[in-house]
Amino acid sequence: MTEPRYTPLIASLPATTPFVGPEVQERARRTKFKARLGANENVFGPSPKAIKAMQDAVAGIWMYGDSASHDLRIALASHHNVSMENIVIGAGIDGLLGSLVRMIVGQGDAVVTSAGAYPTFNYHVNGYGGVLHQVPFLDDLENPKALIAKAKEVNAKLIYIANPDNPMGTWHNANTINDMIAMVPDGTLLILDEAYVEFAPEGTAPKDLTDNPKVIRMRTFSKAYGMAGARVGAAIGHVDLIESFTKVRDHFGMSRVSQAGALAALLDQDYLQNTLKKISKARIRLAQIAKDNGLAAIPSATNFVTIDCGANGNFARAVVAEMINLDVFIRMPFMAPEDRCIRISVGTDADLDLVAETLPKALIAARG
Amino acid sequence: MTEPRYTPLIASLPATTPFVGPEVQERARRTKFKARLGANENVFGPSPKAIKAMQDAVAGIWMYGDSASHDLRIALASHHNVSMENIVIGAGIDGLLGSLVRMIVGQGDAVVTSAGAYPTFNYHVNGYGGVLHQVPFLDDLENPKALIAKAKEVNAKLIYIANPDNPMGTWHNANTINDMIAMVPDGTLLILDEAYVEFAPEGTAPKDLTDNPKVIRMRTFSKAYGMAGARVGAAIGHVDLIESFTKVRDHFGMSRVSQAGALAALLDQDYLQNTLKKISKARIRLAQIAKDNGLAAIPSATNFVTIDCGANGNFARAVVAEMINLDVFIRMPFMAPEDRCIRISVGTDADLDLVAETLPKALIAARG
Repeated sequence: MTEPRYTPLIASLPATTPFVGPEVQERARRTKFKARLGANENVFGPSPKAIKAMQDAVAGIWMYGDSASHDLRIALASHHNVSMENIVIGAGIDGLLGSLVRMIVGQGDAVVTSAGAYPTFNYHVNGYGGVLHQVPFLDDLENPKALIAKAKEVNAKLIYIANPDNPMGTWHNANTINDMIAMVPDGTLLILDEAYVEFAPEGTAPKDLTDNPKVIRMRTFSKAYGMAGARVGAAIGHVDLIESFTKVRDHFGMSRVSQAGALAALLDQDYLQNTLKKISKARIRLAQIAKDNGLAAIPSATNFVTIDCGANGNFARAVVAEMINLDVFIRMPFMAPEDRCIRISVGTDADLDLVAETLPKALIAARG
Repeated sequence: MTEPRYTPLIASLPATTPFVGPEVQERARRTKFKARLGANENVFGPSPKAIKAMQDAVAGIWMYGDSASHDLRIALASHHNVSMENIVIGAGIDGLLGSLVRMIVGQGDAVVTSAGAYPTFNYHVNGYGGVLHQVPFLDDLENPKALIAKAKEVNAKLIYIANPDNPMGTWHNANTINDMIAMVPDGTLLILDEAYVEFAPEGTAPKDLTDNPKVIRMRTFSKAYGMAGARVGAAIGHVDLIESFTKVRDHFGMSRVSQAGALAALLDQDYLQNTLKKISKARIRLAQIAKDNGLAAIPSATNFVTIDCGANGNFARAVVAEMINLDVFIRMPFMAPEDRCIRISVGTDADLDLVAETLPKALIAARG
């Protein structure tokens, strides 16, 4: 035997990726997409101040980034009215979820999520040997009561909920989330993924939760702040839990440029508000495009619109494939019955013109 | 019990960091450093073409980076005359070491390194419950034969060697490394950390090793390419081993800006050669400064010079503390007998002027 002796867990895992990236698809198709509306990126991009801050920071790229992300954490603490000790910065929510799962989940430990919820979370749970218990959506919403009940039943160490939800775009109000938090069993940690919460109505995000060691919330600069390519996320929680990340995190892993950009983006709340208006307007147009095609858009509190194609998963998969054939990158929910839908991220006016033009063709082709 | 149920391993770990970053020190001191020569950063920075590529890439920061790092891997494959399937990109060597240790090291598994070698590697091994066996340096060199012998003795799953070495700056030639590789026991993987190899003489880096599943080499854009703050490293090895990273890596974790910068930096080899000349010249000056102070510089194949202070670790620690008091950030080896030395990274002419001015004062203060 000469090959490395992998851990038994790693040896048992498939080589996999939670998503096939758009560039990977473009290379396979040997054609560039004309609209990139599949990854819930924010086509409006970050504040010009953030762009300038990143371009200026490039001159200092010879230096490692601040291992404590001090200035960014101070600004986030002020923004969220918590202490900087309540905040840890990581390489997007993906990176933070990886660290958190590693801290909590050993082989055979139970974890609860919704069937069809964020696959990258599942990837991490599988990667550390956890056992996933998946609860169905209820009327296209993640189901807090069922998640809690399942957690009690299986003695879960972690529960994952996204509010607003991806891939459906639906949301609960803060009262419902607070009620859920109150029911989290002892010994269970609730992950509240709020990647999309800036897009949601007032009253969606609970107030400060950092006194409660049973919940950790995740925020990102990838969505509303328009910086997916910078890889900056924040986990906000009880000081003891946040301190524990020190045991496992990649201390010098944050790009210096990304840190500077995130700080500048956060400080430009006017720009954020303007972005949110644009996204709200584009959501309305996407819903109208759905309606024009005889389809129903599911109300969304995110930067995407999930559209019920009125048939089964095979039909929706065909619609996605036809849209991709027409050079429009979109995605769809993975699991039934949500996979009757397609999911289209908000785009520029030109992007949505293209959706308006291609969706009818894709539907005809899928029906044909 | 309401706090999260950490895994027993995580619960047993201290909250720790492999290094205290310079910004953290600056905040504690309430004073900025005048010269930043402690983290082996490259003050000459990246190619202007890389700077431009990064500044241009900022406009596309709303998009996730290419999950496959395709263009960068193609370019690296060409540069190293291997296949892109032999290369995986990660957030610096630190990030890649973390993924690799996770893949191989389970609780109680034996790992061999040199006493006083790279602490971030040790951090990862401890973080996954491995048992570190540390072999002494021999005459300020990592000791390949002793590392191999220890690996056989303890049935190690991993051996770590840096060539050139950090913190001593010493190096073995490729023949010695090839001889070491030939002796790696079955079931053991050798990590050859070549973070500094571009600074080393011709004949230091072995030729292509990707046919050998018992060795993986690590390269970085943080040192010779001057992009520490961008967090881009590459692991190069056998296709099966590289493919295994797919099971654990953060697929969308690479900054889009960093990928663009690394590609442009790699393609500007003229700039790299010019940097190497500057660093070689600065090393000579650092050695002269040491000599002017009655100290001996250890020959270096890196972008730092390790200087024997001629006494014990307490004295060298005092010299480092005094240099820091004089606003010059430097570091030193952690373990005896190498801790008789201080380690000064190459700086600009102005940085080295400051070293020439402050080192005599620091030595007097440390002696006093």
